Amino acid sequence: MTDLVEFEKRGAIAQLTLNSPGTLNALSDAMLAALADRFSALAADATVKVVVLKGAGKAFCAGHDLKEMQAGRAAPDQGRAYFADLFTRCAAVMQQIPTLPQPVIAQVHGIATAAGCQLVASCDLAVAAEATRFGVNGVNIGLFCSTPMVALSRVVPRKVAFEMLTTGEFIDAARAREVGLVNRVVPHAELETATTALAETIAAKLGAAVKVGKRAFYEQIEMDQAAAYAHAGAVMVDNMLFRDTAEGVQAFLEKRKPDWA
Amino acid sequence: MTDLVEFEKRGAIAQLTLNSPGTLNALSDAMLAALADRFSALAADATVKVVVLKGAGKAFCAGHDLKEMQAGRAAPDQGRAYFADLFTRCAAVMQQIPTLPQPVIAQVHGIATAAGCQLVASCDLAVAAEATRFGVNGVNIGLFCSTPMVALSRVVPRKVAFEMLTTGEFIDAARAREVGLVNRVVPHAELETATTALAETIAAKLGAAVKVGKRAFYEQIEMDQAAAYAHAGAVMVDNMLFRDTAEGVQAFLEKRKPDWA
Amino acid sequence: MTDLVEFEKRGAIAQLTLNSPGTLNALSDAMLAALADRFSALAADATVKVVVLKGAGKAFCAGHDLKEMQAGRAAPDQGRAYFADLFTRCAAVMQQIPTLPQPVIAQVHGIATAAGCQLVASCDLAVAAEATRFGVNGVNIGLFCSTPMVALSRVVPRKVAFEMLTTGEFIDAARAREVGLVNRVVPHAELETATTALAETIAAKLGAAVKVGKRAFYEQIEMDQAAAYAHAGAVMVDNMLFRDTAEGVQAFLEKRKPDWA
Repeated sequence: MTDLVEFEKRGAIAQLTLNSPGTLNALSDAMLAALADRFSALAADATVKVVVLKGAGKAFCAGHDLKEMQAGRAAPDQGRAYFADLFTRCAAVMQQIPTLPQPVIAQVHGIATAAGCQLVASCDLAVAAEATRFGVNGVNIGLFCSTPMVALSRVVPRKVAFEMLTTGEFIDAARAREVGLVNRVVPHAELETATTALAETIAAKLGAAVKVGKRAFYEQIEMDQAAAYAHAGAVMVDNMLFRDTAEGVQAFLEKRKPDWA
Repeated sequence: MTDLVEFEKRGAIAQLTLNSPGTLNALSDAMLAALADRFSALAADATVKVVVLKGAGKAFCAGHDLKEMQAGRAAPDQGRAYFADLFTRCAAVMQQIPTLPQPVIAQVHGIATAAGCQLVASCDLAVAAEATRFGVNGVNIGLFCSTPMVALSRVVPRKVAFEMLTTGEFIDAARAREVGLVNRVVPHAELETATTALAETIAAKLGAAVKVGKRAFYEQIEMDQAAAYAHAGAVMVDNMLFRDTAEGVQAFLEKRKPDWA
Repeated sequence: MTDLVEFEKRGAIAQLTLNSPGTLNALSDAMLAALADRFSALAADATVKVVVLKGAGKAFCAGHDLKEMQAGRAAPDQGRAYFADLFTRCAAVMQQIPTLPQPVIAQVHGIATAAGCQLVASCDLAVAAEATRFGVNGVNIGLFCSTPMVALSRVVPRKVAFEMLTTGEFIDAARAREVGLVNRVVPHAELETATTALAETIAAKLGAAVKVGKRAFYEQIEMDQAAAYAHAGAVMVDNMLFRDTAEGVQAFLEKRKPDWA
C-alpha cells in the first residue's frame, strides 16, 4: 500500500513525497492529514536534520482538491462548516512548517499553484526546476487565493503578490527567484542533486544551533526591532553555552574540524 | 469645461486622468478634492471592475503644488494649519486606493516624483513606459518626502527607499520593476495597450472574488501570521459560498466556461 | 597611538575606520566601545552631515572576536553573564546607527561576515567593492547568527536571509545589491570615490530635513500604515516650517539656488 505522503530517510535528510500524481498531488483531506502526520512525526524525530518536500509525477502540487470541495456543498449548510474546517486544517499544516525544528526545502517542478504555491512560500527554502510555473490562480475560477496570499505576501514584494493574485497568471522559475519565492533554479535533470546538495550543506551544521536559529528566525521577524534584538540576544547566549558550540568555536580558532557528538 | 480628473468608462474599466498638464498634474487642493470625489464615486460603482489612473501631458504626476503651498505661508500661523490639513487630505486620498473595491493600476509615463511617486506606490499595480523616471526628491529643496516614504517603504526594500529619499535621485523604470515599485515596463508606444490588457485580464475575473480578495490583502498584511490566516480563512469560506464561485469551480471541473451573472 | 576606530572629517563628512586589520576588524569589547563612543560623539556633532564607515586592511569586518569570547568561558558561570552583556552591547551599537541624526554609509570591501554583515545591514546605505563577499556564517562553527539575523531579515527577502543563515554560504556583491543588502557595487579601485560621491550628494542637502526624515523613516516603518501616515504628516508639517525649507521651495519656484545657512 502506497502512502499519500511517502517518507524516505537518507542519513539525516528526510524526504517527503506528495504521492497522488493523478490529482497533481492535490491537498485533499487525506493528503492534508497525511502531511500533518508526517510533520508531527518529524517534529519529534531528533535524527532528522533537514526535510525535503517534493511531488510525485508531473507537478509539485496543484492546490486543493476541487472535486472534494464541491462534494462538500451537499451538506445542509452548503458546506460552510466543512470549508471552514478545511481552510483551518490547511493553514495549520502550512504553519507547521516554520514550527518544525528542521529546515524544510521545497523541491519544485512542473507547477505549484494555489495552495501548492502557498506550500512553496511556506517552506523555509525552495529549489525549482527551470520550467516550473508558479501561480495563485484561484481567481480564474472565482475563488481568490486568500489563504495562499498570507504566505506569499510575506516572501515577495507587495505589488508582485497582488499581480499574481488578481491576474491568476503564472510566473516562471527565474522570476520566482528574482522576487524571493525560491532560492535556487536549476535544470530539471539537476533538481534532485541540487536540492540534496543544499540539504546536505545544512545537515552538516550543528543541528542544535540550526534548531534554535530557525525558531528564533520566525519569532523575531514579527517583533519590533528592539524586542527582536532582546529575544535574539537571549537565544544566542544559550547557543554559546552549548557544549558543541564551545567546541566548534575552539576548533575554528585551532584551524581543525570540530569534534561534534 | 474640463474636469481636473477626467473620468472615462470603457466596459468595466474606469480610466481616471489627472488633467493639469501645465502643472505636471500637481496634486493641488483642487486636484486632491477631485481625486477624492472620483474615488468615492468609484467605491459605490458596482459596474466598474478595474480602475486605471494616468496623467495627461508630459508626466504622470510631479507631486504637490508648490506655488499653492508657498501661498499658504501668508496665514498668521505661517501655514501650519493649512499644511497639516493638506498632508491629512493627501494621505487620505492615498489611503482611499487600497480601500477601493476595485484594483487600481497606475499607468505611468514621464516622471512620477514626490507625492506623484507616492501615488504609484499606493496603487495596487503599476505599468510604466520605459523612459519613466521615479523619485522622492523633496529633499532637494529641503522638504524630506516623509509621507511619500510611508507608501514607498512598504513596497521596495528598505535601503532602496532610504537611498531615493536622501539622495533625491531618480531611478529608471527597469530599476523600478526590479525593486517592486512597478509591475511591468513597456515601450511608451505600448503603454496604453499594455495597461488596458492588464486591466482587462483582471476585469474578466469574478468581481466579487477580486473585491473580497483585495480587501483581505491589505487587512492581512498588517497582521501577524496566525491572525492573518484566521482572517483569510474566514474570507475564503464566504468566497466559496458565492453562487458564482460554485459555478466557477464546477465549470473548471467540467472543462467549460463558467456561466457567471 | 592609533585609535581602534579612527575618525577623520572632510568637510561635513565623517569617516570612521575600523582599525584592527590583524583581526579583520573584529568587534571586540574594545572595538564595540570605541564604535559606541564615536557614534555618541557624532550624535552630538551638528557639523557632520553624513558618516562613512569602513574597515582598514583586507576586510570590512569579520564579526565578533572569537578568541575574546572563548576567554569569557573561564568565568564561574561559563561566560553566561559576559555573553549576555556582549550581545546587549553589540545590539546597542547596531541600533545606534538608525538613531544617529546623520545617514551612515557602509563602505564595504573584502568580507563582511556575521556581526560584520549585520553592521552592513544596520547602516542606512551601503556601497560595496565588486569582490566583496557577505555571509552570516556563524552556523559553520555551531553559533547561529541570531542577532545578525534581526538586521538582515529586515533588509532582504525572507528566503534569502534564511538561506544565508542556515547554509553559512557567502553571497557576492552583485547578489547583495539584487536582494537589497547594498545599494551600489563598484570596482574596488573606485570604492572610495563612489562612496564619497554618495556621501557628498547627501551632504549637499538641507541637514535639518535629512535629520527629521531619517528619524521618521525608522519610526514609521514599524507602525501600521494609518499610524505611519499620521506621524509622517506631522513631521512634514514641521519640516515645511523650517526657514530654510521655505527658502528651498521658493528658490525652486524661482529657478535659482537656495540661500541656505
